[in-house]
Amino acid sequence: MINIEEIKLAIDNYLKEYFQDKGTYNKVIYDSISYSLNVGGKRIRPILTVLTYELFNPKEWKKVIPFACAIEMIHTYSLIHDDLPCMDNDDLRRGKPTNHKVFGEAMAVLSGDGLLNEAFNLMTLYALKEGINALKAMQVVGISAGCQGMIGGQVVDILNENKKSTFEELNYIHSKKTGELIKASILAGAILSGASSQEIAILERFGENLGLAFQIKDDILDVEGNALLLGKNTNSDLNNHKYTYISLFGMEKCKAKCVDLTNQCIEDLTSLKYDTSSLLNLTNYLLERNY
Amino acid sequence: MINIEEIKLAIDNYLKEYFQDKGTYNKVIYDSISYSLNVGGKRIRPILTVLTYELFNPKEWKKVIPFACAIEMIHTYSLIHDDLPCMDNDDLRRGKPTNHKVFGEAMAVLSGDGLLNEAFNLMTLYALKEGINALKAMQVVGISAGCQGMIGGQVVDILNENKKSTFEELNYIHSKKTGELIKASILAGAILSGASSQEIAILERFGENLGLAFQIKDDILDVEGNALLLGKNTNSDLNNHKYTYISLFGMEKCKAKCVDLTNQCIEDLTSLKYDTSSLLNLTNYLLERNY
Repeated sequence: MINIEEIKLAIDNYLKEYFQDKGTYNKVIYDSISYSLNVGGKRIRPILTVLTYELFNPKEWKKVIPFACAIEMIHTYSLIHDDLPCMDNDDLRRGKPTNHKVFGEAMAVLSGDGLLNEAFNLMTLYALKEGINALKAMQVVGISAGCQGMIGGQVVDILNENKKSTFEELNYIHSKKTGELIKASILAGAILSGASSQEIAILERFGENLGLAFQIKDDILDVEGNALLLGKNTNSDLNNHKYTYISLFGMEKCKAKCVDLTNQCIEDLTSLKYDTSSLLNLTNYLLERNY
Repeated sequence: MINIEEIKLAIDNYLKEYFQDKGTYNKVIYDSISYSLNVGGKRIRPILTVLTYELFNPKEWKKVIPFACAIEMIHTYSLIHDDLPCMDNDDLRRGKPTNHKVFGEAMAVLSGDGLLNEAFNLMTLYALKEGINALKAMQVVGISAGCQGMIGGQVVDILNENKKSTFEELNYIHSKKTGELIKASILAGAILSGASSQEIAILERFGENLGLAFQIKDDILDVEGNALLLGKNTNSDLNNHKYTYISLFGMEKCKAKCVDLTNQCIEDLTSLKYDTSSLLNLTNYLLERNY
């Protein structure tokens, strides 16, 4: 079984080295990007890409690290921009001051822009080396991050502040803002590995359920979690007057939904005729995590 | 000879239709993007891509419109973000209120993000259809827009506000912030058309000189131009305490430099064994323009 810690270390190192010792007059943007990128995320998305790729190509997982890291760059850019004063106005992220608190708003906007741009540069370079499957995976990631995906989710999230969202709006926000990129991380791994369309369809459903479980768990932790462990203030949804699954359905139903979704994930994984033990472990960890 | 107005119309129409009637809950981001995209730019960059492509593939220019429009999306995203209060804090752009003045800061940040993302999505789709040359052109555009290109230029521009820049810093800002994407627009056209490496090298030098001439002309217009024609406030550099070529070398030397660079552009174009009359016209227009 593949060691998830080993993958995480490879991702951390790749991201650290990618922006290290770069720049001349513009050096500060690399400092700013590195600050947010290396502040210690869980690396869930790139790990999902690597684990999915590894299902079909055991022992070859190191090859896919650059592409997986491009997805983490997209995730990190979205956090930097979401934290801005004009968006969620958060001062704390992963236990450290948010990017704009350290580097100022202008540099935070530009660092987010830079990360999104470099993510595509990295995927383009990967596609030039690896060919058509990489281009297809880039398409899936690009759409998931765009106006019909993650950005669209953030748009509706912003529009719904201070108002009671409908279930449909909440579903839209969750599936787009968090779910799409998580699903795309899994799909990218499958596409890069050359999985069949049937296998991709199963992994797509797995990704959808995992993304939703992940978001509901985040909402649960925002209420019940430990701020110190989380590295950010709790009850931020409540304080930002954001409606969540918790406010709509109550805590107990949300916990049950989380377990139910996780079980559906496990069912889909076990239907694949490969060694899915690492993905199963990660799925269970995401349900049980306390940060 | 190809009709530049016809190209501009095709670009305007493509960009208008691309984001039309899209979105559900997230519809406002398409309204916001469309507002900035359709407010009436000169479309210099995509026109350069089309004209360069057309040099080597006469009568086939319509094919390259989507790729050219992706470059205009990148240009427009950079304007939206540059105008933000935390950056240049501009209220007026092309004679209309800037994006954040109409849609608010959060939506302006997200619209810029969305345009950058969709530009790459569009180029990716183009590469899936057209193959390796499109991927190579996307690489050139992506690098020109990134942290070592346009974003890097904006970073140094922000850092140099309220301080006297050195000639080297000013050169860095101009070549990166404006020059890189103009050069890339030309290179993209050449690469997409399958031009030889020798032809690409000549067009690269042409692009570099044209980009610099364009920037110096912009600085001249910022002092001498008509605010009504320009559609933005004049003397913005002075008011933002920005050093420019004008403040460094004086108006007369800058005008002479602009003519000199244009002559170098013309020399390079005429060395190519193709009908460069449209590119020559555009080069002369950029020198003579009053907005």
